[in-house]
Amino acid sequence: MSVTAAKGFEAAGVAAGIKVSGSEDLALVVNRGPRLAAAGVFTANRVKAAPVQWSEQVLRSGRVSAVVLNSGGANACTGPEGFQDTHATAEKAAEVLGHSAGEIAIASTGLIGVRLPMDKLLPGIEKAAAGLSAHGGEKAAIAIKTTDTVHKTAVVQGDGWAVGGMAKGAGMLAPGLATMLVVLTTDADIDTAGLDSALRAATRSTFDRVDSDGCMSTNDTVLLLASGASGITPGLEVFAEAVREVCDDLARQLIGDAEGASKDIRIEVINAASEDDAVEVGRSIARNNLLKCALHGEDPNWGRVLSAIGTTSAAFDPDRLNVAINGVWVCRNGSVGDDRDLVDMRYRDVHIVADLAAGTRTATVRTNDLTADYVHENSAYSS
Amino acid sequence: MSVTAAKGFEAAGVAAGIKVSGSEDLALVVNRGPRLAAAGVFTANRVKAAPVQWSEQVLRSGRVSAVVLNSGGANACTGPEGFQDTHATAEKAAEVLGHSAGEIAIASTGLIGVRLPMDKLLPGIEKAAAGLSAHGGEKAAIAIKTTDTVHKTAVVQGDGWAVGGMAKGAGMLAPGLATMLVVLTTDADIDTAGLDSALRAATRSTFDRVDSDGCMSTNDTVLLLASGASGITPGLEVFAEAVREVCDDLARQLIGDAEGASKDIRIEVINAASEDDAVEVGRSIARNNLLKCALHGEDPNWGRVLSAIGTTSAAFDPDRLNVAINGVWVCRNGSVGDDRDLVDMRYRDVHIVADLAAGTRTATVRTNDLTADYVHENSAYSS
Repeated sequence: MSVTAAKGFEAAGVAAGIKVSGSEDLALVVNRGPRLAAAGVFTANRVKAAPVQWSEQVLRSGRVSAVVLNSGGANACTGPEGFQDTHATAEKAAEVLGHSAGEIAIASTGLIGVRLPMDKLLPGIEKAAAGLSAHGGEKAAIAIKTTDTVHKTAVVQGDGWAVGGMAKGAGMLAPGLATMLVVLTTDADIDTAGLDSALRAATRSTFDRVDSDGCMSTNDTVLLLASGASGITPGLEVFAEAVREVCDDLARQLIGDAEGASKDIRIEVINAASEDDAVEVGRSIARNNLLKCALHGEDPNWGRVLSAIGTTSAAFDPDRLNVAINGVWVCRNGSVGDDRDLVDMRYRDVHIVADLAAGTRTATVRTNDLTADYVHENSAYSS
Repeated sequence: MSVTAAKGFEAAGVAAGIKVSGSEDLALVVNRGPRLAAAGVFTANRVKAAPVQWSEQVLRSGRVSAVVLNSGGANACTGPEGFQDTHATAEKAAEVLGHSAGEIAIASTGLIGVRLPMDKLLPGIEKAAAGLSAHGGEKAAIAIKTTDTVHKTAVVQGDGWAVGGMAKGAGMLAPGLATMLVVLTTDADIDTAGLDSALRAATRSTFDRVDSDGCMSTNDTVLLLASGASGITPGLEVFAEAVREVCDDLARQLIGDAEGASKDIRIEVINAASEDDAVEVGRSIARNNLLKCALHGEDPNWGRVLSAIGTTSAAFDPDRLNVAINGVWVCRNGSVGDDRDLVDMRYRDVHIVADLAAGTRTATVRTNDLTADYVHENSAYSS
């Protein structure tokens, strides 16, 4: 049910003609209230797309009445003209919906450095607005796809309220978030501060710990909109956990659909001196191209895990490191452990445990393997 | 002429049976003096192979009489037993050559986490010693190859003296050096302090700025040995420049032979506020998998360059960035520049200029593209 699982929301997805393929490429999500509270997190990349610059400004008010999302073009590195295109998009949506442009968030995804075809995008907004429906969540999720092979949605039901969401993203997944667009909605009656704290906590342990290819996008956007339409205000902890579950579900779907991937790799760093150490080590392992190739070839090459750990600043003694791959402790005390031939690598899921033997903290980072398909797909990218 | 271009050195390369293929796998380089001065730089990886731990200790004395190098096994992550294997290798070479074990440096390359077959390696040292020759440099260079398709040597002639060297390395090339073994020799009469300063300066602007796949090895070793056999002590600046030239030549050969590469990419960062900024930006671009795939596909995708710059902490204004690919300024002022169709991508060499418009400093980082061949080669690595 995506973004329309929560009461008070309508959505639509249409083909506006932005993509030359003619596929759906424009999504609209509208909050019918009574509350219009919202929070957002955006890419940490210092080269930010025009829609990110615009939406960061909109989110400062903590109030979002609608989100316009397009695939088929990132509107990044497009200069002042690109920002004017985003502004014009918000103005058009405001006019059609009878809202204020300053309450309308914009998100774009696709090629960097290309202007959007505004002559197609603006009429597309009218078409989407005409198609708005309380059952439009799936269509919206489909319209934001680029190289995604499937659309991604998730819902968690609370006691009389719900949190739902949609996501797109396949390449460029990285710690600073990805060319990852996510819209979450809830009908719980939560104010902006509550939404903000729940969203930041959730992204920190979910999307921020997905690292497909180490690349950080110019367009990453995660929005959480609350309509308050259920009339219920759950405890913040319960609400935050529901948001985290939806984010975790979507994050897994993103990594599972990563470009060219044949393995889903879960890296669990244990006994770290700090959570920061655990995350640093997890990311270093997740970004090691040689390891990712080895796992693609079903080779439990733990030497490449140790080599990746060795490049970090985390606290550890090289002679006390232990590594398990799919349950077999192939490295003990920094040296050869159990027989690597015991490791069963036939399945899509790969589980690596890196034991730093330096403390009690833990973190899990998810990634995928590096494949020839990834190379092919990204040697001739078109959205 | 490799490591025997300089007077006072003998070398050999033999097949000891360490590699199952039966190819050459053991090299020996001997300094016949009169001087036995040496300097070394080693991997920055905190997980260091046994031979690196050993050789770091040897180099503290500033005196090296011989170097034993083997391919077919990295002797990394092999525990106290692995260190004993390295020690036994040095003892055996000392015995055969009539030297002290504490003057013998060891370098190994190959798979991590596998013990060396000492029953083959030790007899191999006798065989190599029996084959030592003042013309053995090429054979030594051949014996240290792993996935290298060609052996790599370079020589610079001074006025009555020379600097020569050999290198191996194809994968794992990264800022902290690579599974890169390099031995440089000179017959110039230079003391340890002079060798050390020349070597550190040279590696900093050559091997340290080669980044093939972002992976940092456990075994990187670069040694510079001086025999003083020419009886000439050149000025330190002239000598340092000769060392830099040999290192630069070898570094280019390494990147040109990088696993699976079809493009040699030179990234020149200009107008940076500091050299550190320029290097950070160059490395970030060099490590961007998406860009490396695009260049493989002959796609001048400057958006991926900007996206990589945006992840750094370097000083720049996103709206003032300029990027040229093969001489065409495809990005001006952070936005669309000249027509990208003008970029000729047909040749192996690719030249990227990233203008940060933030100062006057510059740095060049070399890398290669990411290809399906790289994935294949590293999905089933065997040395």
